Amino acid sequence: MSTAVTRADGRALDQLRPVTITPGWSEPAEGSALIEFGSTKVLCTASFTEGVPRWLKGQGTGWVTAEYAMLPRATNSRNQRESVKGKLGGRTHEISRLIGRSLRAVIDTAKLGENTIVLDCDVLQADGGTRTAAITGAYVALAQSLDWARSRGIVPAAVNPLSGSVAAISVGIIDGAVMLDLPYEEDSRAETDMNVVTTGTGEFIEVQGTAEGAPFRRAELDGLLDLAIQGTAELTRLQNEALAQAGVSL
Amino acid sequence: MSTAVTRADGRALDQLRPVTITPGWSEPAEGSALIEFGSTKVLCTASFTEGVPRWLKGQGTGWVTAEYAMLPRATNSRNQRESVKGKLGGRTHEISRLIGRSLRAVIDTAKLGENTIVLDCDVLQADGGTRTAAITGAYVALAQSLDWARSRGIVPAAVNPLSGSVAAISVGIIDGAVMLDLPYEEDSRAETDMNVVTTGTGEFIEVQGTAEGAPFRRAELDGLLDLAIQGTAELTRLQNEALAQAGVSL
Amino acid sequence: MSTAVTRADGRALDQLRPVTITPGWSEPAEGSALIEFGSTKVLCTASFTEGVPRWLKGQGTGWVTAEYAMLPRATNSRNQRESVKGKLGGRTHEISRLIGRSLRAVIDTAKLGENTIVLDCDVLQADGGTRTAAITGAYVALAQSLDWARSRGIVPAAVNPLSGSVAAISVGIIDGAVMLDLPYEEDSRAETDMNVVTTGTGEFIEVQGTAEGAPFRRAELDGLLDLAIQGTAELTRLQNEALAQAGVSL
Amino acid sequence: MSTAVTRADGRALDQLRPVTITPGWSEPAEGSALIEFGSTKVLCTASFTEGVPRWLKGQGTGWVTAEYAMLPRATNSRNQRESVKGKLGGRTHEISRLIGRSLRAVIDTAKLGENTIVLDCDVLQADGGTRTAAITGAYVALAQSLDWARSRGIVPAAVNPLSGSVAAISVGIIDGAVMLDLPYEEDSRAETDMNVVTTGTGEFIEVQGTAEGAPFRRAELDGLLDLAIQGTAELTRLQNEALAQAGVSL
Amino acid sequence: MSTAVTRADGRALDQLRPVTITPGWSEPAEGSALIEFGSTKVLCTASFTEGVPRWLKGQGTGWVTAEYAMLPRATNSRNQRESVKGKLGGRTHEISRLIGRSLRAVIDTAKLGENTIVLDCDVLQADGGTRTAAITGAYVALAQSLDWARSRGIVPAAVNPLSGSVAAISVGIIDGAVMLDLPYEEDSRAETDMNVVTTGTGEFIEVQGTAEGAPFRRAELDGLLDLAIQGTAELTRLQNEALAQAGVSL
Amino acid sequence: MSTAVTRADGRALDQLRPVTITPGWSEPAEGSALIEFGSTKVLCTASFTEGVPRWLKGQGTGWVTAEYAMLPRATNSRNQRESVKGKLGGRTHEISRLIGRSLRAVIDTAKLGENTIVLDCDVLQADGGTRTAAITGAYVALAQSLDWARSRGIVPAAVNPLSGSVAAISVGIIDGAVMLDLPYEEDSRAETDMNVVTTGTGEFIEVQGTAEGAPFRRAELDGLLDLAIQGTAELTRLQNEALAQAGVSL
Repeated sequence: MSTAVTRADGRALDQLRPVTITPGWSEPAEGSALIEFGSTKVLCTASFTEGVPRWLKGQGTGWVTAEYAMLPRATNSRNQRESVKGKLGGRTHEISRLIGRSLRAVIDTAKLGENTIVLDCDVLQADGGTRTAAITGAYVALAQSLDWARSRGIVPAAVNPLSGSVAAISVGIIDGAVMLDLPYEEDSRAETDMNVVTTGTGEFIEVQGTAEGAPFRRAELDGLLDLAIQGTAELTRLQNEALAQAGVSL
Repeated sequence: MSTAVTRADGRALDQLRPVTITPGWSEPAEGSALIEFGSTKVLCTASFTEGVPRWLKGQGTGWVTAEYAMLPRATNSRNQRESVKGKLGGRTHEISRLIGRSLRAVIDTAKLGENTIVLDCDVLQADGGTRTAAITGAYVALAQSLDWARSRGIVPAAVNPLSGSVAAISVGIIDGAVMLDLPYEEDSRAETDMNVVTTGTGEFIEVQGTAEGAPFRRAELDGLLDLAIQGTAELTRLQNEALAQAGVSL
Repeated sequence: MSTAVTRADGRALDQLRPVTITPGWSEPAEGSALIEFGSTKVLCTASFTEGVPRWLKGQGTGWVTAEYAMLPRATNSRNQRESVKGKLGGRTHEISRLIGRSLRAVIDTAKLGENTIVLDCDVLQADGGTRTAAITGAYVALAQSLDWARSRGIVPAAVNPLSGSVAAISVGIIDGAVMLDLPYEEDSRAETDMNVVTTGTGEFIEVQGTAEGAPFRRAELDGLLDLAIQGTAELTRLQNEALAQAGVSL
Repeated sequence: MSTAVTRADGRALDQLRPVTITPGWSEPAEGSALIEFGSTKVLCTASFTEGVPRWLKGQGTGWVTAEYAMLPRATNSRNQRESVKGKLGGRTHEISRLIGRSLRAVIDTAKLGENTIVLDCDVLQADGGTRTAAITGAYVALAQSLDWARSRGIVPAAVNPLSGSVAAISVGIIDGAVMLDLPYEEDSRAETDMNVVTTGTGEFIEVQGTAEGAPFRRAELDGLLDLAIQGTAELTRLQNEALAQAGVSL
Repeated sequence: MSTAVTRADGRALDQLRPVTITPGWSEPAEGSALIEFGSTKVLCTASFTEGVPRWLKGQGTGWVTAEYAMLPRATNSRNQRESVKGKLGGRTHEISRLIGRSLRAVIDTAKLGENTIVLDCDVLQADGGTRTAAITGAYVALAQSLDWARSRGIVPAAVNPLSGSVAAISVGIIDGAVMLDLPYEEDSRAETDMNVVTTGTGEFIEVQGTAEGAPFRRAELDGLLDLAIQGTAELTRLQNEALAQAGVSL
Repeated sequence: MSTAVTRADGRALDQLRPVTITPGWSEPAEGSALIEFGSTKVLCTASFTEGVPRWLKGQGTGWVTAEYAMLPRATNSRNQRESVKGKLGGRTHEISRLIGRSLRAVIDTAKLGENTIVLDCDVLQADGGTRTAAITGAYVALAQSLDWARSRGIVPAAVNPLSGSVAAISVGIIDGAVMLDLPYEEDSRAETDMNVVTTGTGEFIEVQGTAEGAPFRRAELDGLLDLAIQGTAELTRLQNEALAQAGVSL
């Protein structure tokens, strides 16, 4: 990979920002993690409750959903609260749906039984990559909440609803160079921007690539995917370390 | 490509449904097209108005945006109107944003001047692939509205804000087979579902792949992309035919 | 009737615009009609579902309601979507209520049994008279959906919930002359504007007359009513033709 | 007129309920009236402000609009507040629009100059006929506010924007008998229900007749109109008395 | 108490405005009072219904809640309706909650049984002190509705859910002088503003003091409380008179 | 003070929970503090922007406002987001207004010039006392943002818009004992609950006392006020320490 291009924060093109995962940050939640990708900080909580929404009752399967939001001053200029506007914006809806889909891909809702898990991902500070940090942190909160439920027998200890792990990273092309994990400054001038969600074994759950400036070619797409898989592999390792340290058995 | 798998409607795996594009379907709009992908029918209109929203004034650039919606009985069972609910759903927001991004990728807003184009894509009948039909039809309406503006000198006739064309198609994997242009029945049981937006020259504008059932591998992703490019090439040809027939000079 | 006054489209004062009714336009709906009054085009669908809203359960009677809406670019300048505004306008509410009342006047909900019919009238193109076209088309969709239900035994074939038919037309006074079926251009400069809904046998279901410019006298009111009855009689004939052609037995 | 039919409150078929109009009931408003039709009580205020909404500026004409609402316990059972529901119901919209149209029919907005009058009609107690009482009372508040403006020279004293007066009454058919001014109990079992708005000289401003039970014939319509004109003539007399007593010069 | 300071309306510093309480003003409500503090007029109704909201069912206790609102032209300039805005303002919420809390402090919901009382306080005219007038009037409506329920045996006649009475008054500091019952003109220039809710025996239910201009000292707070208790004692006497006159046995 | 009563967390009746103030917790905001009262954690940010809302322009004074919110899983059971509900609850409105009033009491908006400060108080974890922690932390964020503005000359360095400091604490009566700084468990069973906001010099800005169970007597009120003043004095000391440590000159 070319090293001629230099990044503002001195990272190599294929290097993640410093990543910190603090499992159990929230006292009241059944599972939680404060995840940091550089200056991006997202608080992820998993709320585990017995029972499912009315329309799912009696089918023996559980329900997993996610909500994403940003504090008004998470960014350099203040954004009006969506609660004050009285409606959710399109971006909020879109990211909430992405997080929910990504985590449902590794959970077997039949094994979960008639239980509900709500994943809340609240961005406390935003510097690019908030949706990928949210997915990566939400997995840790989810795993912790399942450990909580299995240790109490709400889900039988012998049953593991998780079929694998999930991590996500952004990649992009700037001045023709393919780069990993874009902070806001890079993201805003990327020609192509891609978010990739994979399992811990490197298979794809979601691939979303967008031409921001000019359309992109197949070879560029391939380069982006290669780099993303390398990034999520590293995040998988950090997730496992965090869960081990928190005493969560998977 | 395997032909052992048969499709309910008898198509080959790499075959589009019958596609019909009727440019100029709407009398009042500056540009319009009724587009049909099999039983899916989307009415696309382009509303061209002079001037831009307040926050863009004086910058010399135009504005292109899109709104997607579905009639309540476009589907097999009736859906409540979003106007009655009092808010847009996440899916509506997400598709509206996708259509807008896709068309902005081929329009040079500086060349458009301080003019606004709103693309409305209303699904009259839905049988899968509504977002890809909407993008494909919206391009025809957009091109027609620009022809209207250039023929009146609102945009100088010597200036062409369009840098290319846009078409979109869905592809998916069902029972392990890669298929083109999924109707609702196939879409609802696909293991992987992908929407691909390309330029008329086959470069990518947007790639969105989602694991609905199981995660997908790199080889599967490659097969989906190959088939999608073949599909959008065919749609590009049909768009050009429709515009030629409507007397639109590009 | 005076023929000294000429109309922009060359019609006689007591002449309808060309009316086209296409029953069964929508594939998924149980009943439907695309109705055209000149350039006004309204897609009417009837959604027949077994069961009634909770507050009606166990009373043995059915429920018939209507919703009217307009596509944003149905008119010469684009209107913001009510789903985007987050609320229905007064005009939308008022017309939806009028359509519902008009159709409930010819249906015996006790004979309908505990079934619900929702009539959706979506204006695809608007050139005056959208509410009268909507009522006239909604009757065709309603009749078709009842035929569907009776042929399947959901409503016993021996029971006909319809007690008659419904049609509606606008009349108005322009430059002192009484005219039938006003397009937008005439409607906007009428001194008095009246919408009349009648049964197929010429009795009144709804009479709504409004002084737009100057108050109107009793003799003028009488002239308007005479002309309206003549118009709805002609529409009744066209509805019956359309239903016969669609194989609907009344 | 038949007197064989007796009414619960002992009135003749062509007799109004006791009507009371108290002009100037509200201290802060420029014009006001508390109007009572039997147990129906509506507080009407006219808010006169200099200037017009932005979209009317510089055109030299004024703006008159109306808003109708009902206190939650105006009726026998409590209704949820529309402010709590977060949206206006269809009935509220429809009546507000009717009141506004009715009053605009007798005011020359060019003579009003760039001034705005908002008529608020709040139902304190409801026993049928609230919309007709509201229109009749709103005229008194409107006239008083214009007197206020002309006495201060905001509208030149030599200019009278009012071209006449407005009053409204309900009529209906119960058990085949045509009756004037229906309280709730009669209104709820009327076969046909009609609201008629006239000028003080007996010309029509608005005629709204609805078949509640069975469609109605032309002869019935004629009987209803005759009775309504008689009722609004009596209301016109009471309006003039109230205004004279309040020292308003018309 | 200093008498050097004179008030615009000539009152002594420790004197209430003329207070009028008209119990039973509303015909349909189970309890009601029109209460006037000078030019402030509030219509208070108590809606008594059998049964409780779903989440309280089966617990044997009742539910008492309150809603406060203001007519748009209750004040010198017109305010937009909250029903039109589509949401309640913070002030409305805050006062509604205060009224509800204040009345729940003197009612034993276990003795009320599974019944619901909704107190609606609608300000018809506002000249300061609307929240204190509302609480004082709502108590009268509440007492009357309980008398209604006990006389019908809906609440056993031998059981009195009321443990006492409630009254409220405003006090404030203007130019250093402590004053009772502030009209709008005084309220808007008070340095400190306090609303005090007490029982009929002079104990505190709610104390809300706010520094509008400068922070206030302990001695000032003491003076405000002394004066408020004197004011609510006088209001308690007037409430009892009104209830006695209406034949309500407490 | 009686020590016979013991508290669940072992504190003396007049003892605060451990209080931590971390100034500058947020990187993008002009001022910020993470404040903890035991398990209650509130992130307070101050967003300083040049300019004022349109309705204040040209008056030479600034604008200070506050918004309070709670993350959905700040509490033991998850609460639905207000952004998803589409409206703010009464409690949110009430606390936001209290925070804004409290801080405006110590800021001279004329000295602030035409600048705006928005204080966002987001509760990350809630265990009682969130509104008092929010006010106490918001003061630190506010002071820091003013230091930022004065060091850049946006507000002249010679001008200090702050006239003092603000702190707030809760007090309550449980089993007859007066206690300082109530966590959720105590708050929910308090007979009387009071929030007191004072200046750094011990004068009152806001006093809000509510009888939750039984009405309270004057002597109890006096005991609560004494204890609150002692608590806010201690908080003032901690605020000053935090600001000094952050290098903020007051």
